[in-house]
Amino acid sequence: MSSTSYGIGLAGCGTVGTGVIRALHRNGALIQQRSGSEMQLEVKRILVRDLDKSRHETVAPALLTTDWQSLVDDPEIAIVVELIGGTGLAYDIVARALTLGKPVVTGNKALLAERGTELFALSKIHNTPIHFEAAVAGGIPIIKTVQEAFIGNRIKAMCGIINGTSNYILQRMSEARLDFATALQEAQSLGYAEADPTLDVNGWDAAHKAILLATLAYGFPISPTEIHVVGIEQVKPIDIDFAKQLGYVVKLLAVIREHDDDAIELRLQPSFVSKSHILASVNGVFNAVAVNGDGVGESLFYGRGAGEDPTASAVVADLVEAARSLAHELPHRGFLPWGKQGRLLPIEETSTAYYVRFDVTDRPGVVAEIATVLAEHRIGISGTHSPVNPENPDAAFVDMVFLLHSCPFGLLQKALQKIAHLDCVNSAPVVFRIEQL
Amino acid sequence: MSSTSYGIGLAGCGTVGTGVIRALHRNGALIQQRSGSEMQLEVKRILVRDLDKSRHETVAPALLTTDWQSLVDDPEIAIVVELIGGTGLAYDIVARALTLGKPVVTGNKALLAERGTELFALSKIHNTPIHFEAAVAGGIPIIKTVQEAFIGNRIKAMCGIINGTSNYILQRMSEARLDFATALQEAQSLGYAEADPTLDVNGWDAAHKAILLATLAYGFPISPTEIHVVGIEQVKPIDIDFAKQLGYVVKLLAVIREHDDDAIELRLQPSFVSKSHILASVNGVFNAVAVNGDGVGESLFYGRGAGEDPTASAVVADLVEAARSLAHELPHRGFLPWGKQGRLLPIEETSTAYYVRFDVTDRPGVVAEIATVLAEHRIGISGTHSPVNPENPDAAFVDMVFLLHSCPFGLLQKALQKIAHLDCVNSAPVVFRIEQL
Repeated sequence: MSSTSYGIGLAGCGTVGTGVIRALHRNGALIQQRSGSEMQLEVKRILVRDLDKSRHETVAPALLTTDWQSLVDDPEIAIVVELIGGTGLAYDIVARALTLGKPVVTGNKALLAERGTELFALSKIHNTPIHFEAAVAGGIPIIKTVQEAFIGNRIKAMCGIINGTSNYILQRMSEARLDFATALQEAQSLGYAEADPTLDVNGWDAAHKAILLATLAYGFPISPTEIHVVGIEQVKPIDIDFAKQLGYVVKLLAVIREHDDDAIELRLQPSFVSKSHILASVNGVFNAVAVNGDGVGESLFYGRGAGEDPTASAVVADLVEAARSLAHELPHRGFLPWGKQGRLLPIEETSTAYYVRFDVTDRPGVVAEIATVLAEHRIGISGTHSPVNPENPDAAFVDMVFLLHSCPFGLLQKALQKIAHLDCVNSAPVVFRIEQL
Repeated sequence: MSSTSYGIGLAGCGTVGTGVIRALHRNGALIQQRSGSEMQLEVKRILVRDLDKSRHETVAPALLTTDWQSLVDDPEIAIVVELIGGTGLAYDIVARALTLGKPVVTGNKALLAERGTELFALSKIHNTPIHFEAAVAGGIPIIKTVQEAFIGNRIKAMCGIINGTSNYILQRMSEARLDFATALQEAQSLGYAEADPTLDVNGWDAAHKAILLATLAYGFPISPTEIHVVGIEQVKPIDIDFAKQLGYVVKLLAVIREHDDDAIELRLQPSFVSKSHILASVNGVFNAVAVNGDGVGESLFYGRGAGEDPTASAVVADLVEAARSLAHELPHRGFLPWGKQGRLLPIEETSTAYYVRFDVTDRPGVVAEIATVLAEHRIGISGTHSPVNPENPDAAFVDMVFLLHSCPFGLLQKALQKIAHLDCVNSAPVVFRIEQL
């Protein structure tokens, strides 16, 4: 077998980019052996913003450039790795590479979720694949699993914890009774949250990943503007405490589910998960995705979601696939759209059980008044609790928690609007979904 | 895109074979859409032993044959699926198909573990792949994960529960305090164990799978005669009870681990697993494999290990890969050997902590006598217990459990041989490894 070398243009040399260089350096020979070919993957150019920044010793200064177009166009570059993030320059780089017939490897979930329709159309026209395992849960090959291993399945549901930063913050809020701001600060000081943690804590990092998973499973483009996303910024220690007392854990959960009429439910929010469910045990910066297919039944995949080495591992696997696709003129595996036009279920029509906490005046009749409005809307109550708030045990205003049977979210919203007008209710209620997984 | 049809020859039409026919029937259109091609997978011939047996309605009688050679040689057959099991006729079918350049899909772990070296050599000579995702944990794409997704990793360890039948039996022995024979009978009546459960309960079904995983990760052929395999037939309810009292669960565990000097540890036995470890929660007929790679770190994959639909799902995914390899003249991905000659660590050199139960005469001095022999062998004791045996609380002969610090198994064996000669010890000691996962 003759040795073929594939030149790699690496756009971006931050944590993950450096990880890719180090992984190829450390395991290059092993990768050749394990791929059963003499394939050599060699980083030939590296796009950076600042040529003078100090870098890891494996990053050869001679390869650095600040000119993205010369990198992509360089005839020595066969595969382009995009790791700069964002949806502007990253788009230009990916689009240009596809136009030149150079396979792309990217970990950019925002780019694919926001502008994937355009890019996958280019991929199809130029018969050049985009590989993006690194975009969702780096240490878990969930893209490959859904797209290849479960190709014979109708995917019934996927539920997961796919943002390690917010999972870490929620865990610390729970175990150390920290408030959100303090837990976030801690995560930043440990390097688990970036200097700008906006997309992690507002849910959009996870939402972008969920869009990719749903598009893979159901084959129609989903616009970020259509989906329901709630982050963890508004989660209060008091609700985490109450959740614990009731046998639940609060997790930022992506829920994707196919309904009988082919409508797809897709939502992202902090949810109550039963302590006994395996997802409740996913701690720290780990990710997990549960997949239910009509053939495989229940399955679950667990691993590190981010970080230098796990994400680099996904990029390297995609580089091997990209080289294989060049060697054998493989087409892309089909991403979107692959057939049917799909329909998202409006959030008002999605049903779960709920935890609703009201801040009420502590007087007789409160439960009856709230329960009456719920009854008028035909929403069942599975329990009411007035948990002890350890910070304020003797207050005149108390927390009253209602646990509600499953009903459409829109119906709950209507009932809550009416309840808000009761004079015993002092502020907007706090709502968490209770997931049946 | 023009539509290409790939004729499938299905050797074997039992549970899994029928599942494959049904899955292609149910999800054929979806598979075409999801694969991004007009690929059609069509079962054209089916090898059976008995033409007259009653079969599922989707199995067309006209396709049945009892002549394996005419099936494999049929020019309409492009891909051969081997699901008959065993290492005799199955070998002939697979070898013939490879010789004809027809990709093979198989779920036959015994065949690949026992005769894989010959078959993968044929695969290489004829540049025709063998796909075998269905051979290990049908509902978990662990082959694809190790071979493709983690190709950039040095695999440090894999530990798993990869035989659902014995996992179910151990769970029932634990929760219902059944003895082995009764639990096995129950598993058979529920269809979780076959009429001949030998390979499930003696550990060899799991051992064959472990050999495949280790060979994928480390690239050298491993002979079944070289590895240490203990089944669950000798597990007693009393040890399961004592495990519980000590905070452990008994699981039939495959342990594969790379040591610093490149030697590979590979063993299969019922082991103590801490109740708090995620593998302790894998119940019923589910499988789970924990993988530790130098890039991805810790990860875990969980799903159904066997059964009609999960295994058929793996076969269908491999059929898509096989068709892809035909369409694009893809070589096999490299299985074995891919380079280095490896070395298995002799079982005597493998170290764990241990649980050892002695049947002793209940008199003063017993602990001292046993402890003295252990001290002579420099084996540390982390605790001794004389747990109450609920079946025999006032016996003159009692169970004395020693929990031992990690030491090489060979050293433990020497100490136990000496202890066996003490007159206070009445029978051969019972040993379980306590795994540090």
